[in-house]
Amino acid sequence: MSLEEQVLRIATLTHDAAREAAILPMSVKEKILRELAAKLREKRRELQQQNAEDVRAAKDKGISAAMIDRLTLSDKVIEQTAAGLEEIAAFPDPVGEVVRMWTRPNGMRVGRMRIPLGVIGIIYESRPNVTADAGALCLKAGNAVILRGGSEAHRSNQAIVNLFKETLKENGVNEDVVNLLPTTDRDAILHMLKLEELIDLIIPRGGEELIRFVAANSRIPVIKHYKGVCHLYVDKEADLEMAVKLTVNSKAQRPGVCNALETLLVHKDIAARFLPVAADSLGAAGVELRGCDGARAIVNSMKVATEDDWYAEYLDLILAVKVVDSIDAAISHIAKYGSLHTESIVTRDYEAAQKFLKEVNSSSVIVNAATRMSDGYVYGLGAEIGISTTKIHSYGPMGVEDLTTTKFIVLGEGQIRE
Amino acid sequence: MSLEEQVLRIATLTHDAAREAAILPMSVKEKILRELAAKLREKRRELQQQNAEDVRAAKDKGISAAMIDRLTLSDKVIEQTAAGLEEIAAFPDPVGEVVRMWTRPNGMRVGRMRIPLGVIGIIYESRPNVTADAGALCLKAGNAVILRGGSEAHRSNQAIVNLFKETLKENGVNEDVVNLLPTTDRDAILHMLKLEELIDLIIPRGGEELIRFVAANSRIPVIKHYKGVCHLYVDKEADLEMAVKLTVNSKAQRPGVCNALETLLVHKDIAARFLPVAADSLGAAGVELRGCDGARAIVNSMKVATEDDWYAEYLDLILAVKVVDSIDAAISHIAKYGSLHTESIVTRDYEAAQKFLKEVNSSSVIVNAATRMSDGYVYGLGAEIGISTTKIHSYGPMGVEDLTTTKFIVLGEGQIRE
Repeated sequence: MSLEEQVLRIATLTHDAAREAAILPMSVKEKILRELAAKLREKRRELQQQNAEDVRAAKDKGISAAMIDRLTLSDKVIEQTAAGLEEIAAFPDPVGEVVRMWTRPNGMRVGRMRIPLGVIGIIYESRPNVTADAGALCLKAGNAVILRGGSEAHRSNQAIVNLFKETLKENGVNEDVVNLLPTTDRDAILHMLKLEELIDLIIPRGGEELIRFVAANSRIPVIKHYKGVCHLYVDKEADLEMAVKLTVNSKAQRPGVCNALETLLVHKDIAARFLPVAADSLGAAGVELRGCDGARAIVNSMKVATEDDWYAEYLDLILAVKVVDSIDAAISHIAKYGSLHTESIVTRDYEAAQKFLKEVNSSSVIVNAATRMSDGYVYGLGAEIGISTTKIHSYGPMGVEDLTTTKFIVLGEGQIRE
Repeated sequence: MSLEEQVLRIATLTHDAAREAAILPMSVKEKILRELAAKLREKRRELQQQNAEDVRAAKDKGISAAMIDRLTLSDKVIEQTAAGLEEIAAFPDPVGEVVRMWTRPNGMRVGRMRIPLGVIGIIYESRPNVTADAGALCLKAGNAVILRGGSEAHRSNQAIVNLFKETLKENGVNEDVVNLLPTTDRDAILHMLKLEELIDLIIPRGGEELIRFVAANSRIPVIKHYKGVCHLYVDKEADLEMAVKLTVNSKAQRPGVCNALETLLVHKDIAARFLPVAADSLGAAGVELRGCDGARAIVNSMKVATEDDWYAEYLDLILAVKVVDSIDAAISHIAKYGSLHTESIVTRDYEAAQKFLKEVNSSSVIVNAATRMSDGYVYGLGAEIGISTTKIHSYGPMGVEDLTTTKFIVLGEGQIRE
């Protein structure tokens, strides 16, 4: 079989299994996820043997220590993954929920019922635990899933998918509800992205380069975010102490992630009081500052920010700082340079808070909390399958519910069109 | 300027205007739509002059009478369009609605607020009244819009857009909230479909060929439906009289539309009683029947249905008829041959109704009403901007709300990530 035929075959099997996944009783889905968690713990040694081969091959290829770390299925990672599956098992099941129902003048009742999307394709990079997480989230929402992991993790991914299939089978469920592409060849992704009749949604998880590759080549809808250039705006009515705390937490608590702060905007009326204190705390946290002229006039030690800095997603201990004349100027800056991810305002002023909430159309708009709070777990979505900064279907962190859609249901008594 | 530059220029202007559209007070949007309605009535003669030139050119090209009819802005069509604008003006404004809000253990409140999508591209064919309808729906939801109508209607579309812009201007609103592509060249569509950074959603309205062309060439998400192969399943516990009434209404009330019935499925236990009566009524309505062997054994006058008939969207007074052994067989037939548009069951049996509602995942699933009821107006969405048979973002008839998304809003008191 050619590569194209192999991909088509797997997609067809998964598509056929999706009908079965869609009507699985919630108790069965829950049982499968709990049993898979138990199996991950039980078969830990076997999993780690497969994983060790992946790690060895990766080391031979001279892959970075950070990537080796992400690739490794340590006892701790396996336990976290198993616990994560149990959490997902315990979520409310979204399928079948009637989210609204109303009655029409002719007596016909019309409602919207939550249903699975069908087949979801997840394209991801090195973490093998995503195989279990993403597969579980898709199943919980009644979907079938085609996984395509990174080549470095292929043995580990295959081992986890085998356990998944074993658990499905033991529960009398079609094994093709969860499939892994048999090859990590990039051409296999290209073939997969053409199968719009068989796959309903593609979610790429990984670096910007992978996501752009997927988006550029897909005939299937893609939910994606490229980067997070997040802003914190310190309003003239900000609580100074809170502003410093939120700035440092947003920037330094974990600088390498997409909801970390990249540009600090400060109202001119508070800049002289706020910036020196903030600069001290940021400095103590090891953060390098790059400021506009206004900011550097207050804190001389700042480096000069260039136009590129306003667009930059540093993912590092670097922060761009700009003094603005008004909240409108802050909102305009965000509209021009932002990435629609997460923006936060620090203020005690009611009108400023309302204006910021209304006029900033990023996927998360926050008043008086750190940008780092923008997260599926923190928001209480239970788990995060991804994050979307495009507005179609989902916008912001995506939970299980975002893997569903609603159909219209109509309960009639013989109504016809006049 | 090259065509590509012209399209880019219009898209950029529209994108810039979208920020203004997003925060327009609801009273202003309502006023604009009411004034536009008044203007359509007032300037009826001028509009009809422009329209007459389109009609004359179309006649010279030898275009069909049906298309000339769709193209013509009669007094009646103009009055309907104006009344439609007033209806849209009176809808609840979806923008700013907080659809849910909850509190996290750390005291942080998290909610989802409805916001506009941004810029919507509508690509449509000959009806010039779509220019007013679609523009109004987009504006109501706080979006800016780029319209691309058919070449036969270009003068009429331009005249309507000019009135729209005049009304916007009189209300101090950026005219670029509503734009029409200056040319109906197909290449202009191709350029438009590449502008994923400037346009958020594309809605093609027209024949399958246009929709496939758009879907195949777009880098922007497309909401679409290709066809409606709708089914009515007469269960063994159906009320016979209701079943006949719903069958005839679903098929014959307006056979040329996508929610008209195309295949009738009949449970074997009721077929001998139902089919002769149904065949009489359908015959009286001028419907040609094409049956499976089982159906033809009961009504010999039916033509033979071939495999192609089960896939057919006749859009005509023709109906495929199949006798099935069970509700499961009916559901499987729908899953195999259906188009995910609308399916209806006629039954008095509680379990059959529930099973059908649960297991059929078409965008509209109906119990005891005609397939023709699947419609935005009939469902009470107020108006219909389109219909989606792909599950991403929207599924089924789309109203104003489907032209919005939700962002997360967070109301904090200094919460940070631990």
